[in-house]
Amino acid sequence: VFEVKWDAVAAEKGGYDHFMLKEIDEQPKALRDTLRGRIDESQRKVRLDEVKLTAKELQDIQKIHIVACGTAYHAGLVGKYAIEKLVRIPVEVEVASEFRYRDPIINDKTLVLVISQSGETADTLAALRLGKSSGARVAAITNVVGSSVAREANDVIYTWAGPEIAVASTKAYTTQLLAIYLLAVFMAEKRNTISVQDRVEILQALQMIPEQAAQLVAAKDRAKEVAKGVVDWNSAFFIGRGMDYTVALEGALKLKEISYIHAEAYAAGELKHGTIALIEDGIPVISLLTQPDVYEKTMSNVIEVKARDAKIIAVVNEGDMKAADVADEMITIPKTHPLLTPILSVIPLQLLAYYASILRGNDVDKPRNLAKSVTVE
Amino acid sequence: VFEVKWDAVAAEKGGYDHFMLKEIDEQPKALRDTLRGRIDESQRKVRLDEVKLTAKELQDIQKIHIVACGTAYHAGLVGKYAIEKLVRIPVEVEVASEFRYRDPIINDKTLVLVISQSGETADTLAALRLGKSSGARVAAITNVVGSSVAREANDVIYTWAGPEIAVASTKAYTTQLLAIYLLAVFMAEKRNTISVQDRVEILQALQMIPEQAAQLVAAKDRAKEVAKGVVDWNSAFFIGRGMDYTVALEGALKLKEISYIHAEAYAAGELKHGTIALIEDGIPVISLLTQPDVYEKTMSNVIEVKARDAKIIAVVNEGDMKAADVADEMITIPKTHPLLTPILSVIPLQLLAYYASILRGNDVDKPRNLAKSVTVE
Repeated sequence: VFEVKWDAVAAEKGGYDHFMLKEIDEQPKALRDTLRGRIDESQRKVRLDEVKLTAKELQDIQKIHIVACGTAYHAGLVGKYAIEKLVRIPVEVEVASEFRYRDPIINDKTLVLVISQSGETADTLAALRLGKSSGARVAAITNVVGSSVAREANDVIYTWAGPEIAVASTKAYTTQLLAIYLLAVFMAEKRNTISVQDRVEILQALQMIPEQAAQLVAAKDRAKEVAKGVVDWNSAFFIGRGMDYTVALEGALKLKEISYIHAEAYAAGELKHGTIALIEDGIPVISLLTQPDVYEKTMSNVIEVKARDAKIIAVVNEGDMKAADVADEMITIPKTHPLLTPILSVIPLQLLAYYASILRGNDVDKPRNLAKSVTVE
Repeated sequence: VFEVKWDAVAAEKGGYDHFMLKEIDEQPKALRDTLRGRIDESQRKVRLDEVKLTAKELQDIQKIHIVACGTAYHAGLVGKYAIEKLVRIPVEVEVASEFRYRDPIINDKTLVLVISQSGETADTLAALRLGKSSGARVAAITNVVGSSVAREANDVIYTWAGPEIAVASTKAYTTQLLAIYLLAVFMAEKRNTISVQDRVEILQALQMIPEQAAQLVAAKDRAKEVAKGVVDWNSAFFIGRGMDYTVALEGALKLKEISYIHAEAYAAGELKHGTIALIEDGIPVISLLTQPDVYEKTMSNVIEVKARDAKIIAVVNEGDMKAADVADEMITIPKTHPLLTPILSVIPLQLLAYYASILRGNDVDKPRNLAKSVTVE
């Protein structure tokens, strides 16, 4: 008889040094699992079995409030773009701790969509209850079956990301985005605001996402290299327009929460209304340039900060021939539908934050002052 | 015959070292001028002669988009609170450079309200034109008679702040707030969503604002003292909930644009979803605590950052007995209606930014990289 001594935590990490990197790597599988069974065989329709909203009920909705905290709030911002674009219902996205105390205008023509990985986030749960008591229909996107949010919402879309242990959320975010896209296409089809062709295009692009995510999580050396140019700075900026701006916000949050670099995201066009005063020689400006319709406008802002000697780290689509002229570092993402780039462009930013944290000698999985689920207000 | 040599710029500065301080000091007068003639003799009604919107037209409005850039955008955020509270029309506030490119949902039941000091801000003007061409009614708040925005809007509310020369906006912002409050009460009266008593209460409080602003601009020594505790830091945070959060955003922008300290504002309840990781021993956290209905909630967040050894600079209402237990520095503002605190609470933050800039040896009136009016995109 002999004893095998082993560390339960290390075993769960499956050979990884940190849960965060393990969870980044799990994203292709998490995305595949979240997609499974939700696009029907015709490739034209989304199936969301836990969403009971009928076409008639959807027709009556005049306003959607997406309410969440932290990373899930950033997923909600993508939701505004996707839903307004595809469904043409006005969407307002708000952090739960603000929403619940400001006497929002809600009624029975309102859909409140809450997003919470744990399904137990205190402010988000309170927002859900406020929505219900005001007569709104409440839908939820959550990762935990049987969580409070899942039990209390009228409709639920589960992300099948598996347990997320690291405080800095990664696979929860990308699967939340996937759930949002599925919901947007689902609603657009039911409200007849999307052509079959557009639906097919988006659904086909969605099915390629897990494989494309796999390419991106494999590009660790590139992220490590870029991180080296960031870690000596106290501040960093993330800029972009439209959907790129929402990813900039998430990229900045990742970097700040585990590297403790003061990262801040800005809508690229707002920089010159004040924040550009902070740009100095060599400061890293991570510039997202994945949206064709605002590419030139964003590029003009990138050139402005470049002229103030900022170091430009550009996140661009594969095949971008222009950015190299301006960028000090380039990160490319595989081609996808312009609505879907956030799922891909965030992955190198997750890796950048991870390596920045490592290089600074921080505890990646347990950053100072933070808890995984904020179940108090 | 003898010649008097004098410097035209110095003369315009009227004895001040900087336009910014002169303009901060001009706020009581600017507010008085903006208020003049706009509250009728009964003290119950707002008169806005340049606003042609009839009660009937106002009844038809289902949605308001407030669109602006920089400081004017922050004024717009206060507008959302005031209008939703008093008029119960949903309001969406957006930076102009984002709004104009995202195919917003606008129609003839929409009011687009643009805010621009100069009336020439390129992105804001483009947003105005987008609103008009989409069939929306367009109103404008501007400081310059005959400016493009004033000429093209259907309805105009002028702020009578006089010329603003310093790049960092001060009197334009507080008079924009005043214009917004007047508009909110005007609309609420026309749509019958406010009682006479509430109207009288707000209008009486508004008339005290210029005198209360005068008290605040006089408190320069206090601001200078507080600034000394901030200038050695690379980063600073401004937190608050509700209307306090909107002022936090403006306070952070002021500090960053002229002191070059990386200041960032956070909705107090969002801190623990990531940013609290940046809190370290001694870092300044300017905490706004002027809103009675969220006072306790914000205080609990202040206590959290205090527990991480942040230096708490509390901005509170006169007579606040609790904050002194937690705060390292206190700044008090005179009592007013809770909806109106932003006009007052921003003034000490303007002074804080001014003295931080001076102490750091910066060019207050012409911060690096910035122009006064952004007339290019």
